[in-house]
Amino acid sequence: MSEPEVLPHPDRAEIKVDQVLQALGDPVRLEILRAVATAPPEGIACGEFPLPVGKSTRTHHLRILREAGVITSRIVGTRRMINLRREDLDALFPGLLNGVLTALPPD
Amino acid sequence: MSEPEVLPHPDRAEIKVDQVLQALGDPVRLEILRAVATAPPEGIACGEFPLPVGKSTRTHHLRILREAGVITSRIVGTRRMINLRREDLDALFPGLLNGVLTALPPD
Repeated sequence: MSEPEVLPHPDRAEIKVDQVLQALGDPVRLEILRAVATAPPEGIACGEFPLPVGKSTRTHHLRILREAGVITSRIVGTRRMINLRREDLDALFPGLLNGVLTALPPD
Repeated sequence: MSEPEVLPHPDRAEIKVDQVLQALGDPVRLEILRAVATAPPEGIACGEFPLPVGKSTRTHHLRILREAGVITSRIVGTRRMINLRREDLDALFPGLLNGVLTALPPD
């Protein structure tokens, strides 16, 4: 197995706005944001939505988003599911996430 | 003279949200944002507000913000004045700038 089942996530109090902005400042990561923002409550499987990059690059971008506090990543059955940390981000930075989502270019 | 009088600025239509987020994803550049966001209409002189970095690093950060379309930089008399492109950013990405400004840590 190449990845541990439980990956580290920052606590809400550890999430910093500069790191969130840095994590979101990339077109591929904004595509991931768009995907998780419209996902059902159980999240989306991390390998199962279209991205114009290979698997290792996808993993790299997901790690940056997770370590910045933008997404969670957890094993559910045989899949790794990712979710947007909307509640945490909205509590910490009111209006920021909606501002970014509104600013995304058309799908 | 080490810098040309007129530095290049992207047109409004060239400003991209990923580049704006990338430019803002840095604690020093967020300090610059805070400074220009509260500046008078004539802007602030680029060397005359406190930043915890040296002159060449300050210039580097100002260039990143200018090239991403976050600030303008122009010569007025003997000073280089910088301004926030609030009108452009609000028109392109409604709510984004206010979301970032609200998220800034206390001064």
